[in-house]
Amino acid sequence: MRTEISTLGEFGLIRRLTESIELKNESSKYGVGDDAAVLSYPENKQVLVTTDLLMEGVHFDLVYVPLKHLGYKSAIVNFSDIYAMNGTPRQITVSLALSKRFSVEDMDEFYAGLRLACEQYNVDIVGGDTTSSLTGMAISITCIGEVEKDNIVYRNGAQETDLICVSGDLGAAYMGLQILEREKAVFKGEKEVQPDFSGKEYLLERQLKPEARADIIKKLTEAGIKPTSMMDISDGLSSEMLHICTQSKVGCRIYEEHIPIDYQTAVAAEEFNMNLTTCALNGGEDYELLFTVPLADHEKISEMEGVKLVGHITKVDMGCALISRDGQEFELKAQGWNPLMDDKK
Amino acid sequence: MRTEISTLGEFGLIRRLTESIELKNESSKYGVGDDAAVLSYPENKQVLVTTDLLMEGVHFDLVYVPLKHLGYKSAIVNFSDIYAMNGTPRQITVSLALSKRFSVEDMDEFYAGLRLACEQYNVDIVGGDTTSSLTGMAISITCIGEVEKDNIVYRNGAQETDLICVSGDLGAAYMGLQILEREKAVFKGEKEVQPDFSGKEYLLERQLKPEARADIIKKLTEAGIKPTSMMDISDGLSSEMLHICTQSKVGCRIYEEHIPIDYQTAVAAEEFNMNLTTCALNGGEDYELLFTVPLADHEKISEMEGVKLVGHITKVDMGCALISRDGQEFELKAQGWNPLMDDKK
Repeated sequence: MRTEISTLGEFGLIRRLTESIELKNESSKYGVGDDAAVLSYPENKQVLVTTDLLMEGVHFDLVYVPLKHLGYKSAIVNFSDIYAMNGTPRQITVSLALSKRFSVEDMDEFYAGLRLACEQYNVDIVGGDTTSSLTGMAISITCIGEVEKDNIVYRNGAQETDLICVSGDLGAAYMGLQILEREKAVFKGEKEVQPDFSGKEYLLERQLKPEARADIIKKLTEAGIKPTSMMDISDGLSSEMLHICTQSKVGCRIYEEHIPIDYQTAVAAEEFNMNLTTCALNGGEDYELLFTVPLADHEKISEMEGVKLVGHITKVDMGCALISRDGQEFELKAQGWNPLMDDKK
Repeated sequence: MRTEISTLGEFGLIRRLTESIELKNESSKYGVGDDAAVLSYPENKQVLVTTDLLMEGVHFDLVYVPLKHLGYKSAIVNFSDIYAMNGTPRQITVSLALSKRFSVEDMDEFYAGLRLACEQYNVDIVGGDTTSSLTGMAISITCIGEVEKDNIVYRNGAQETDLICVSGDLGAAYMGLQILEREKAVFKGEKEVQPDFSGKEYLLERQLKPEARADIIKKLTEAGIKPTSMMDISDGLSSEMLHICTQSKVGCRIYEEHIPIDYQTAVAAEEFNMNLTTCALNGGEDYELLFTVPLADHEKISEMEGVKLVGHITKVDMGCALISRDGQEFELKAQGWNPLMDDKK
């Protein structure tokens, strides 16, 4: 079944995709259907705004990314930025540019994923823009969230002796991408390898259906811990750690042996003959949280499930370094994935 | 002079484009440089959010649109949506996707236009995203504004006997586009016509450097007039009038003779052998305001400079019609420019 978008037109398509949306948050006053959405936040809350632009062929490849998963992920990556400020996402606007190859049913799929993410994280879709593209698909999502003024966590608050923490594990989404890229090559007949996803389910899920760490934010609040600095890991631990150190005017030591890595990630790195630590440090799209806490929170944070201590903050003149398993120091470099420098992905 | 973007990288480019930005609005607490921008609005204000996605080849043609103008216009079209809610724009986020053909200097130009618009309308650039594109350029801007709750004007409040008003004049931006398209054809050697912009300056300015009608919103407030419904005219008067009538569950009569049209627009329509009224009704990108006011405001609105009465609201069962100069009724149809249906522009 394929219905051309031109049979509905822009407004018909928007109506179809958004008509059954119910606004659930108290702060969402008016959603889709006027020149702008109307929001109302109480005086004690500050408003957080983040935005992401995803381009076909650069950020996603529709050869192996199902549209429903793409919708889900597009929302999640924005929620993740709001959590990384210690906030709660409340609304998104969704803009899409589509070429003629997309059908109404394709958009139903994309919106199904988007709406699933919004339901799970209690976020309202309040607006957007739908237009055409001469070539690929472009997705622009803006997420609005809330946070109490005193609870905001910036990137610039890390202090000497603070502990460096990471949620979940790193490098899995990157290995998931390698597997999908390999399958694409197989599909094109470029390589003589049979598709084999068994034992790699976690890696594929991390790449195709990531989650934002709302649970960690909740645990930190419940434990009475306010990080001194925080950001989400979208471009790799090295790159993000350098952002925190630069903005906080501090140095750091990260211990290779403490970097959390899943077993499947390790197996896949070996299979692809890649350095595992490099994958964990520089692989993108983990959407885990990187944060620092005062040394005094050592006990509380050590007991927290899903959080690992990976190092500590130092004076700025100590620089930023990785301490390898054999005790050597290596300068931390942002080799991370940079879509402006490198079109590989 | 051409500096490749890859020499600066994503973060270097963002730093260059945004480092001298100073936040001017009280509600802008933290701008570019973290996972999200932080805004703070007082309790008595509601927050307006609007977003637009502009794609190269669909919404703009870099053959004849200078990047500085494009930056200016990209901001203005979003401000216009906030004014159309009777609000004031305060912040924007700017996401850009760029192919390798763009240089650092190109982005300086784009940002120069963007920043000029922001200065003139007192809006802060608080965030964004810069990434690469395999093909053309994509621009996504989200604008956040404020309005007192009781002052919001939706599309759905038009009442029977209300007067229909339009600011400025219509069809000029569309004629400006025709002229630029003709020059492009000349440039390509497709037509044997000499470029001739004299006497067409207004049309070109309307297409390349539109303004948002902050002045009309101010005049309405000063005159104590709160429109019953309002929207901005981006897809043509017919299309927008039908939106207001559908959402307000009313009908309308628009009088051809009262549609405001500039002399240059009329001359150009004749030159291009186009129907002038059709251009004014269906030409896009005017960014004028279409609004309705109670009959009781007739005197006040008649005296307001820059506003024209073009018709009145009727019962829903009267339908939506244009009354021609010779008194005939024609059903109002949204032939307006629809980028999802038509790739001409």
